[in-house]
Amino acid sequence: MTSRGSLTVVGLGPGDPRHMTPAVRAAIDQATDLIGYGPYLDRIVGLAPGQRRHGSDNRVELDRARHALTLAAEGCRVVVASGGDAGVFAMAAAVFEALESGPPAWRGLDVRVEPGVTAMLAAAAAIGAPLGGDFCAISLSDNLKAWSTIERRLRAAADGDFVIALYNPASKARPHQIGRAFDLLRELKELATIVALVRAAGTDEVRATVATLGTVDTSMIDMRTLVLIGARATRIIEGAEGRRFVLTPRSES
Amino acid sequence: MTSRGSLTVVGLGPGDPRHMTPAVRAAIDQATDLIGYGPYLDRIVGLAPGQRRHGSDNRVELDRARHALTLAAEGCRVVVASGGDAGVFAMAAAVFEALESGPPAWRGLDVRVEPGVTAMLAAAAAIGAPLGGDFCAISLSDNLKAWSTIERRLRAAADGDFVIALYNPASKARPHQIGRAFDLLRELKELATIVALVRAAGTDEVRATVATLGTVDTSMIDMRTLVLIGARATRIIEGAEGRRFVLTPRSES
Repeated sequence: MTSRGSLTVVGLGPGDPRHMTPAVRAAIDQATDLIGYGPYLDRIVGLAPGQRRHGSDNRVELDRARHALTLAAEGCRVVVASGGDAGVFAMAAAVFEALESGPPAWRGLDVRVEPGVTAMLAAAAAIGAPLGGDFCAISLSDNLKAWSTIERRLRAAADGDFVIALYNPASKARPHQIGRAFDLLRELKELATIVALVRAAGTDEVRATVATLGTVDTSMIDMRTLVLIGARATRIIEGAEGRRFVLTPRSES
Repeated sequence: MTSRGSLTVVGLGPGDPRHMTPAVRAAIDQATDLIGYGPYLDRIVGLAPGQRRHGSDNRVELDRARHALTLAAEGCRVVVASGGDAGVFAMAAAVFEALESGPPAWRGLDVRVEPGVTAMLAAAAAIGAPLGGDFCAISLSDNLKAWSTIERRLRAAADGDFVIALYNPASKARPHQIGRAFDLLRELKELATIVALVRAAGTDEVRATVATLGTVDTSMIDMRTLVLIGARATRIIEGAEGRRFVLTPRSES
């Protein structure tokens, strides 16, 4: 091929195309090849007939990243699609891990990342302003890190009184970790701490539940749920018609 | 007025319109009144002649929020504009604080938040995948919280080995806090820890500097800079032509 290949890792945003940035859409429109987890690729509408889709399942990030780099090295314009933001518990890290361990020629490729709206921002927006103070994001998946590391981070997050966003809180293969995480947090934080569960954030099916650490029903939590656990200052505002907002105020005593 | 008023807090994204979501643009197009810090409103192009702009300076978030709610209560369709994401160190919290302390009728208003790409995601995208692991976001501004709270959060973030994103690292009124923050972090973390300074993320003027906790030059840091401090696993990948990527791998031992 004569053209120089490229690889752009994009974040599609948290659901509907209305949260996808124009920069991401432009990268998609210019791509010869699109790589990603099948359901994410399915969210991309309006591809041209010549654009190739390479869907895969959810468990092979590094293989997918190597495939993308291989195609880019052959001269293709490759887009690797993640949900949410590409850099947050998504494909950007896998691509750079593959780049690091791959052939030296890969380091000369035009590799970029186009950011997107990550799930915790859409989940927060759905219930008000829970991230109004300092916050942290922790993935509960122990596929790639030890559970003890996750517990250490939960302890530190409680020590620092951060608002906590939990990604990947549960899956069919890991149904019990969210319960263990909440058991630990109940030892470290007050039971009255606000907890919000936001399912399908960024879509028309969004559903938010506001509870406390003492009352939260973890059986409702699945892989499409983003869990937000408040800081000490986080509180509920009762709106009209039973609507509830969650606020972490900017000022703290 | 006959129509029911509304208030939508939007995040314009981290700079260029190409990072603004279609949902945010749609809210702007439907607004009768736009409220925000003047330079943010200046970033919105293509307003219709009848749309009213209410620019203000950067220091009066709560007044601005009350003004927005007052207009919405009068039947206007109000958009409050933030840079980045509306919920991260931005206007959403101020709006809900004003709602909470305002007239009961405000609680019946149609108040929404439309998320955007927050600065740390654009900064991360500019240098690779530094947020590939668990991370936290801390505002260094002590306008609304005690410096001791900020120090407590920096200690907790170091204890938990989070990647740290520092927002509002310095301003003309607060030039010395970033130095104090780095002094503390040098006591808590290894001097070889990767530090990235990303200025004007999400614009064509973006400029990234990669250093370590031991070598970073804090005099370069201003209010347009997003500071990223690595976890233990964070490392540099040398690309071609002097380009450097920053990676926090997904897996940790």
